[in-house]
Amino acid sequence: MKESWSSVDTLETNFRPLVVIELAKGTKEETIEWFTKRIVDKKTNGGAQLLIKPLVTENGGENIYLVGASHLRLLLGAENVGLVKECNDNSMRAFTYSSRKTFKDFADDNQNFLTMSECQYIIKHELENLRAKDEKMIPGYPQAKLYPGKSIVRRLLTNGILVQIFPLHDREELKKLRHTWYGQVKIGYQPLDEIRCYFGETIALYFGFLEYFTFALIPMAVIGIPYYVFAWEDYDKYVMFATFNLLWSTVILEVWKRICAVMTYRWGTLLMKRQFEEPRPGFHGVLGINPVTGREEPVYSSIKRQLRIYLVSVPFVCLCLYFSLYVMMIYFDLEQWALDYHEENKSNFSSLMLYVPSIIYAVVIEIMNRIYRYAAEFLTSWENHRLESSYQNHLILKVLVFNFLNCFASLFYIAFVLFDMKLLRQSLATLLITSQILNQFAESLLPYWLQKRYMKKMKERMHSLKMDTDLSLVEQVNSEKEMGTYFGTFDDYLELFLQFGYVSLFSCVYPLAAVFAVLNNITEIYSDALKMCRVYKRPFAEPTANIGVWQLAFETMSVISVVTNCILIGMSPQVNALFPDSKMDLILTVALVEHLLLAIKFVMAFVIPDKPRDIQIKLAKLEFESLEALKQQLNGNHSF
Amino acid sequence: MKESWSSVDTLETNFRPLVVIELAKGTKEETIEWFTKRIVDKKTNGGAQLLIKPLVTENGGENIYLVGASHLRLLLGAENVGLVKECNDNSMRAFTYSSRKTFKDFADDNQNFLTMSECQYIIKHELENLRAKDEKMIPGYPQAKLYPGKSIVRRLLTNGILVQIFPLHDREELKKLRHTWYGQVKIGYQPLDEIRCYFGETIALYFGFLEYFTFALIPMAVIGIPYYVFAWEDYDKYVMFATFNLLWSTVILEVWKRICAVMTYRWGTLLMKRQFEEPRPGFHGVLGINPVTGREEPVYSSIKRQLRIYLVSVPFVCLCLYFSLYVMMIYFDLEQWALDYHEENKSNFSSLMLYVPSIIYAVVIEIMNRIYRYAAEFLTSWENHRLESSYQNHLILKVLVFNFLNCFASLFYIAFVLFDMKLLRQSLATLLITSQILNQFAESLLPYWLQKRYMKKMKERMHSLKMDTDLSLVEQVNSEKEMGTYFGTFDDYLELFLQFGYVSLFSCVYPLAAVFAVLNNITEIYSDALKMCRVYKRPFAEPTANIGVWQLAFETMSVISVVTNCILIGMSPQVNALFPDSKMDLILTVALVEHLLLAIKFVMAFVIPDKPRDIQIKLAKLEFESLEALKQQLNGNHSF
Repeated sequence: MKESWSSVDTLETNFRPLVVIELAKGTKEETIEWFTKRIVDKKTNGGAQLLIKPLVTENGGENIYLVGASHLRLLLGAENVGLVKECNDNSMRAFTYSSRKTFKDFADDNQNFLTMSECQYIIKHELENLRAKDEKMIPGYPQAKLYPGKSIVRRLLTNGILVQIFPLHDREELKKLRHTWYGQVKIGYQPLDEIRCYFGETIALYFGFLEYFTFALIPMAVIGIPYYVFAWEDYDKYVMFATFNLLWSTVILEVWKRICAVMTYRWGTLLMKRQFEEPRPGFHGVLGINPVTGREEPVYSSIKRQLRIYLVSVPFVCLCLYFSLYVMMIYFDLEQWALDYHEENKSNFSSLMLYVPSIIYAVVIEIMNRIYRYAAEFLTSWENHRLESSYQNHLILKVLVFNFLNCFASLFYIAFVLFDMKLLRQSLATLLITSQILNQFAESLLPYWLQKRYMKKMKERMHSLKMDTDLSLVEQVNSEKEMGTYFGTFDDYLELFLQFGYVSLFSCVYPLAAVFAVLNNITEIYSDALKMCRVYKRPFAEPTANIGVWQLAFETMSVISVVTNCILIGMSPQVNALFPDSKMDLILTVALVEHLLLAIKFVMAFVIPDKPRDIQIKLAKLEFESLEALKQQLNGNHSF
Repeated sequence: MKESWSSVDTLETNFRPLVVIELAKGTKEETIEWFTKRIVDKKTNGGAQLLIKPLVTENGGENIYLVGASHLRLLLGAENVGLVKECNDNSMRAFTYSSRKTFKDFADDNQNFLTMSECQYIIKHELENLRAKDEKMIPGYPQAKLYPGKSIVRRLLTNGILVQIFPLHDREELKKLRHTWYGQVKIGYQPLDEIRCYFGETIALYFGFLEYFTFALIPMAVIGIPYYVFAWEDYDKYVMFATFNLLWSTVILEVWKRICAVMTYRWGTLLMKRQFEEPRPGFHGVLGINPVTGREEPVYSSIKRQLRIYLVSVPFVCLCLYFSLYVMMIYFDLEQWALDYHEENKSNFSSLMLYVPSIIYAVVIEIMNRIYRYAAEFLTSWENHRLESSYQNHLILKVLVFNFLNCFASLFYIAFVLFDMKLLRQSLATLLITSQILNQFAESLLPYWLQKRYMKKMKERMHSLKMDTDLSLVEQVNSEKEMGTYFGTFDDYLELFLQFGYVSLFSCVYPLAAVFAVLNNITEIYSDALKMCRVYKRPFAEPTANIGVWQLAFETMSVISVVTNCILIGMSPQVNALFPDSKMDLILTVALVEHLLLAIKFVMAFVIPDKPRDIQIKLAKLEFESLEALKQQLNGNHSF
């Protein structure tokens, strides 16, 4: 039953293009020849054993290549990357070629056993793991040094010889997905499993979280509406609303972990073994020995990195924070000026003018966030982290700290320095709504419009070339390669994170925030879906088991919101009226309640299990089986 | 190179007794015959393939058996339990018999490759995993039901046929250990590696923690002394001391994790794979199918357990807490009465009387703690937890909550209701010192004295029987089987936990607490060592990688102490004098400082890595190697 790598046919008749490789214009012939040979070469010769075809266009070679693989090659690749699939007995197991018959829906002629995005992920993995043998450089480019074990594709990318690698869309599938996802106007869940099949787990998990978060906000929104409508200013009701919000935010974050575990178990990523992390493409250093692998690879002193972080990055971030606070003070000057103006010339225009500073400030905040984002990316990449995960963590930390301060500093100032609840409510509303509108516009509508315009131009050009209007493969590749690249879910999560801040930090002052958040998120689902399907290149699937550091970020935010809400309630005149004699008793009571709420939060986070019972049992079962198998193996070795 | 189980000789000439099995007097012959046969039987027949010998005493069979095993059997058993040992290249790896030559100090004739306590652990593991095949009951005892896969030893234990199993002391080794441990008066570290070799990792880790904790308290004690000597009542100095204490307590708990990782890496337990957890011996229920293993075993409904917990245990614990508070109020009445008495008849006697209520209360607290301990054990065992770990967690939670309230309620009451700092200092000192003296007495000295008396009697009896005074094996077994059983490190950790509470909760009121704690811990090391070596039976070694739930308990205590210390400082007259106009500003400042300290604590806990860098690299290396091996295996399967 053993299939050998060598029997994998490299010249299959039904070549299905999966991934596109675009080389720089004017790449030397010898380089192309060497690179394609390495891709096609057999595994035993250190190749990737994939299929590759040049894309033949009318106006000659544009250095675009299509990569595919035989069915058998993909199955062996699936085993290599450790894909987890459902078995006939409904358990989830790591796919191995030798046990392929035990998997659900497996048949040797069933080309759909692996989804297209899984195939593309496998090809990407195989391409990235195509490593130099004894080449000292990339043929034709003496400056592009290689050493044994260096990923060829990563070197080609950093040297600009390889422009991009991206997976192709599947027009049919995409059309179907678009229809079920946002094609019809309906109230219901998103087709998360289909999204996962098409875009991979990371993106599906984001949409899952977005949907879950929206549903979770609904109770807060529903409870918040009467507070606004009837202008309840009751002490009891305020405290009740805030308490509900705080406990609710803990519950939803804990329950999300469980839902996430259920989803990723079904998708197989909860069980996927973490692969050994290679250095990120941009990492550079002098050649040395990695203490973990014992392999030769670039080494960069950790002390140098620490110095860069503490002597450059940290001061820079502090400077940015100071600048952000400075801008905030300008805003308050503007606000004051607008108020004065309104006092002097009372008119419709002047009362409208009252909102102008807030709106300007909201726009400025968004612009600053975006500029800072680039600076943070530049700095973090200059810090030269060896691992992508460490790079991401440092980037996220930098961006989170700045965005948090940038967005909320003015609100904190208004609430706890100016003590102006009316202004707080107004600022909160303006900031929230403006940032939502700006985001929706900048994220989806603008790129969509730009792309439409571009497509129209393309079509016209195509027409002028008198070609078939039915989009051929050539046209598809040419149009997709010009599409923007989706840089991951970072910005999307960040947006939700800030929204969560607007909703929870001052929830007892502005109960309507949750309503706006829900409304925004419903359109957000549609605009993000549009963005994924229409605006950007198809991204490679990335298996993930959870939303990672964002869980921690949301939890931190919910802890901070306990503090802010308790203080806000303590400051309200209704509560103050309850303690007419002694401010001290009031503050002590507030502090006591705050500590109690925090304690309840921690106990709840501790008591609610992170995984539902049935998933726990399934995981325990798998662990038990692997222990038993190990025991069997040991006993077998000693020939029972 | 393959050695088969069948070649393990069951009749080795140099039988070395390792473990003692004591059966109940009057156990039926057929039972003994069947049980010993199962122990000696070959692995292929479902036996344990160990060696067993009856202990022949003068006055006939006492149903005591000695268990040993051949060298080869022990090596195979070491592989089975997953022992991790040091290799020739200084890396730590799971021992396998086939790769035995690569391990440090391995030689086929080196009987010391496995330490005696490892051998005893292996034998215990093999005995506990001796499982029923098709027996329906224990021969001779129809009421002792068996089902396929049931651990025979556990059934024998629960039915009282098996009285006890314990490992034998090694007189020579113990003498050496005693000498290096506490035999000479010297200042220095304990011989932790030797302790680990003799008593196993759990106990060595406790002594390691005790030593580390004592060293960690020294800076607090040193800084605390001048506060007491010069009676500093300065605001700045108080705040400095408390802040230092709070940050220090975070640092020491984080650093402990790192030290613990270094130790357990060296001992191999950090890398040991967790074995599948069997139901605990006392667990009972109707026979059913375990969803994880698919095996037949007793099943007990989780709902019934929840009902028992919430309807019986929780109310009982609450009742006990109420009772404890009630006793506390009686203590305050007594205290008041003593004060009144002192006011009326001022004399030396009456001023001494002032201390009497505190001392009585401290004694009562200790007694209540001990009684409650038994009740908690009974209740938790009645809750019928399936796993030992779940039983332990519920027991620890019950005991911790009660002991915390019982020990500290009066101090909280004095501090935050009576606002009497002088009384607080006095109570704290009395409670701390009394409980330390009581503990040292009840834990070590009393049992030691009892045992000495018993040994003397034994010796006299022996003499009257006119036997050799040199202790033979028979005498050794007979004396050891009468020694008390060491029930694990629970009480020792609990004592340290409460001590940590006394030191940290009110540290800024009574800086001298740390001094007493250090003094106590130095004698504690000696008395605990004495207890382990002289008073109790040798315990079975238990591999562990950390101090488990105690880490969490200590961390929680250090969070609570931030709150209490901030409040205490806020209440001090010196600080109050700083805010003459507004109590409100004072409280707000205190609250702000408290939140800042808590935030710093959490950031510190997050930033300090749990494992030192070199251990991280070593672990990453092992993980990388196993991933590579897996890949090799996969590629091998597909015949490269």
